[in-house]
Amino acid sequence: MNSLDALRDLLGADAVLTGEAMAPYLLDQRKRYRGSALAVVQPASTDEVAALLRWCSQTRTPVVPQGGNTSLCGAATPDGSATAVVVSLARMNRVLEVDAGNNTITVEAGCTLADARAAAHKAGRLLAAHWAVDSKVRLGGALGTNAGGLNVLHYGNTRELTLGLEVVLPDGEVLGALRGLRKDSSGYDLKQLFIGSEGTLGIITRAVLRLDSLPTAIATALVPIADAQAAIALLRELQHTAGDRVTSFELISRRCWELIAEHCPELPAPFAALPPWCVLLELSDAGTAEALRARLGDALTTLGLRDGARLAANEEERGAYWAWREAIPEAQKRRGVSIKHDIAVPISSIPAFLVEAEAALKALYADADIVAFGHVGDGNLHYNLFRDDVSDAAYDVEPQVNAAVYAVVMRYDGTISAEHGIGQLKRDLLPQFRSAAEMTLMRAIKQSLDPLGIMNPGKVL
Amino acid sequence: MNSLDALRDLLGADAVLTGEAMAPYLLDQRKRYRGSALAVVQPASTDEVAALLRWCSQTRTPVVPQGGNTSLCGAATPDGSATAVVVSLARMNRVLEVDAGNNTITVEAGCTLADARAAAHKAGRLLAAHWAVDSKVRLGGALGTNAGGLNVLHYGNTRELTLGLEVVLPDGEVLGALRGLRKDSSGYDLKQLFIGSEGTLGIITRAVLRLDSLPTAIATALVPIADAQAAIALLRELQHTAGDRVTSFELISRRCWELIAEHCPELPAPFAALPPWCVLLELSDAGTAEALRARLGDALTTLGLRDGARLAANEEERGAYWAWREAIPEAQKRRGVSIKHDIAVPISSIPAFLVEAEAALKALYADADIVAFGHVGDGNLHYNLFRDDVSDAAYDVEPQVNAAVYAVVMRYDGTISAEHGIGQLKRDLLPQFRSAAEMTLMRAIKQSLDPLGIMNPGKVL
Repeated sequence: MNSLDALRDLLGADAVLTGEAMAPYLLDQRKRYRGSALAVVQPASTDEVAALLRWCSQTRTPVVPQGGNTSLCGAATPDGSATAVVVSLARMNRVLEVDAGNNTITVEAGCTLADARAAAHKAGRLLAAHWAVDSKVRLGGALGTNAGGLNVLHYGNTRELTLGLEVVLPDGEVLGALRGLRKDSSGYDLKQLFIGSEGTLGIITRAVLRLDSLPTAIATALVPIADAQAAIALLRELQHTAGDRVTSFELISRRCWELIAEHCPELPAPFAALPPWCVLLELSDAGTAEALRARLGDALTTLGLRDGARLAANEEERGAYWAWREAIPEAQKRRGVSIKHDIAVPISSIPAFLVEAEAALKALYADADIVAFGHVGDGNLHYNLFRDDVSDAAYDVEPQVNAAVYAVVMRYDGTISAEHGIGQLKRDLLPQFRSAAEMTLMRAIKQSLDPLGIMNPGKVL
Repeated sequence: MNSLDALRDLLGADAVLTGEAMAPYLLDQRKRYRGSALAVVQPASTDEVAALLRWCSQTRTPVVPQGGNTSLCGAATPDGSATAVVVSLARMNRVLEVDAGNNTITVEAGCTLADARAAAHKAGRLLAAHWAVDSKVRLGGALGTNAGGLNVLHYGNTRELTLGLEVVLPDGEVLGALRGLRKDSSGYDLKQLFIGSEGTLGIITRAVLRLDSLPTAIATALVPIADAQAAIALLRELQHTAGDRVTSFELISRRCWELIAEHCPELPAPFAALPPWCVLLELSDAGTAEALRARLGDALTTLGLRDGARLAANEEERGAYWAWREAIPEAQKRRGVSIKHDIAVPISSIPAFLVEAEAALKALYADADIVAFGHVGDGNLHYNLFRDDVSDAAYDVEPQVNAAVYAVVMRYDGTISAEHGIGQLKRDLLPQFRSAAEMTLMRAIKQSLDPLGIMNPGKVL
């Protein structure tokens, strides 16, 4: 039996895509990687994933797991050899259970973030994982990259939201650890291996995620600020005076607003005169929005930041503030090609990072145009460089630009990937930024779990 | 050179204890295990730990890491062969840095929890890890068991508080991953392997822990309640009406109060008539304690629970409430030998667990006297059985009692160790309660990291 017939036999003919039908699965979200595959398959159950991986092990067929295909590092795109099977989890998209008493939701890996959030909401609970494009994102991919997003400073990363996993190992064995426990100290916590390993150790098929109480009040403000140091001081002051209630804290540089004005003219300007930096922040609480807004206004007044700040008066204004934030990636895309970084440093080192990285890039390129924004409340910045030439030729200097930026990142014990993963984009960089001992141990883990090397080859390691 | 001379050569003569000086390190906290050792050594630096493990690897000498020797499962006690080196981290006890801007603390593994909490407090920050005996607890041990404690429902376990680790691997290689980042998606998160692995994969030497904002207001109440189901309803209601502010939520059965009355008569009775169950709960917030107490009082009034509940009017009363809670283990100890369990089930299954476990034990033993209490807010109960005979002979039926209790635990997808680890006490039980696939993978990880099997042999696996 040839390979395609074998796959059809295992999963049913409808679940095996070939030819043109594969196209959307073979191009990554940023359109930087186009691969080819033996087939794209869409199993419908854990048993089918297990049967598939047994077959892939027997035939030494490379396996590329794929969720919503929203990786920003090419983690879900096969190479060009047309030997791999892309395993789309899109058909395993159910919410299996919401347990309001336990504050947990159990999902299949192909469930979208939007569907899972909606199911939690319906039960009066919050699934905290949240970032743009959440209707495309599938939870298996979020788990695979330990995705972060907009409220990590309060709720944690995808890892911290994960209580249990079911994983199919490369040999087809099913690792069932789908427990919904907040405390479990019974042996090694195996699920941690798979979270953030980008499909290189197995395929996550189900997960139990932690839910939180659903805030009844949200207060959102856009606060002009002198510099990043002042932003961090504001964060700590707010955490002190408003308690554990700061759920988003985004830094936005003046260049972001200028790009929005130029490339997204449908959006109004937020300020008559653009401030050098501003913070988009949000508090979440029980009680009423009016009370929380008043509390936030008072705190800003006390800090001398009320004048010039904008407080969203209602949900519509709140939506407009977030639309600005979400327009930043869009405005960048419309401008053209930039060299992007998804870095994190200790929060206290953000100001020094910004100064030193800018100096390094300006010393390299007279036309350096830096767009910096992101989740400063958890130390994560998206730090991107445009030059005058915004065609694909801009990528020519990517190695030099990376070297300059990452040198500053490493000076402050930071990371070259805060929330987007390594994928194929940063694979060759990784050994420069993790110690030899770390790389050796990662390879030992890979060898131990996937001795045939069939799982997502060419990614991470 | 003989072994002791070699150790003295590596670490200095003062750092190598032999003979009688070893005694306190060879008996576990519950006095259930007494081991013997070649020597107890006290390295003073990571370099010394590395040199020691190189020597242990070369000589195939078993290594038993030890922090504060407060394991409740014998995890830090050597076997009786007198071949192992017990590695006490007690001299590596420094707080290395508090970074208030990054909200992190960097410690050596032998630092006590009390010292680390005090250093954080001095900087206006909270190190959330908190449980009884925190002046004895050393952080390396807390990391090794992924210790839980009294406020996991809000702040997470030790794992969730850990941002970075430095670990010495069995061959003496130092794995430096001492980064203080809240987001890092750059390859496998290796530190997760060592948290909760009870010293079987390496020796943790340093850690970067997350700090939180220091609450300025705490409100504490003791609330009589009909049963566990009502306790869970109260928890969810409070989380809804008081926001994300419930930081402790402990369930206490009537038997606990009776034991305290009998064995700790120095403590007054909390209620004129003892309720069947009560909850000791705490909210933490910014602002004033008065405002928070009023808010808690209002919430209890709304829920119809204010009558009969006691609200601590000040820090002294709060201390008295927690003294009751902490007296439960002491009262049990004074009564005699009980068979103890540290279980967790999904929070929503706690009521069923209590009913079914009690029925199972009462069917086995007419004199079954069950003491149940614990961290119901995160699904973790301490569930202990006394019988009339409270001498060591009580342990004779431990296997039968465990079988009865754990059968109910497993029916609800729970765990036989929520926060105390496996150690040697539960090692032989573990394979019954984790799947064959999980055990196989744990053994593969152990084999990969510690191929010589020198790290804490006889523990966990």
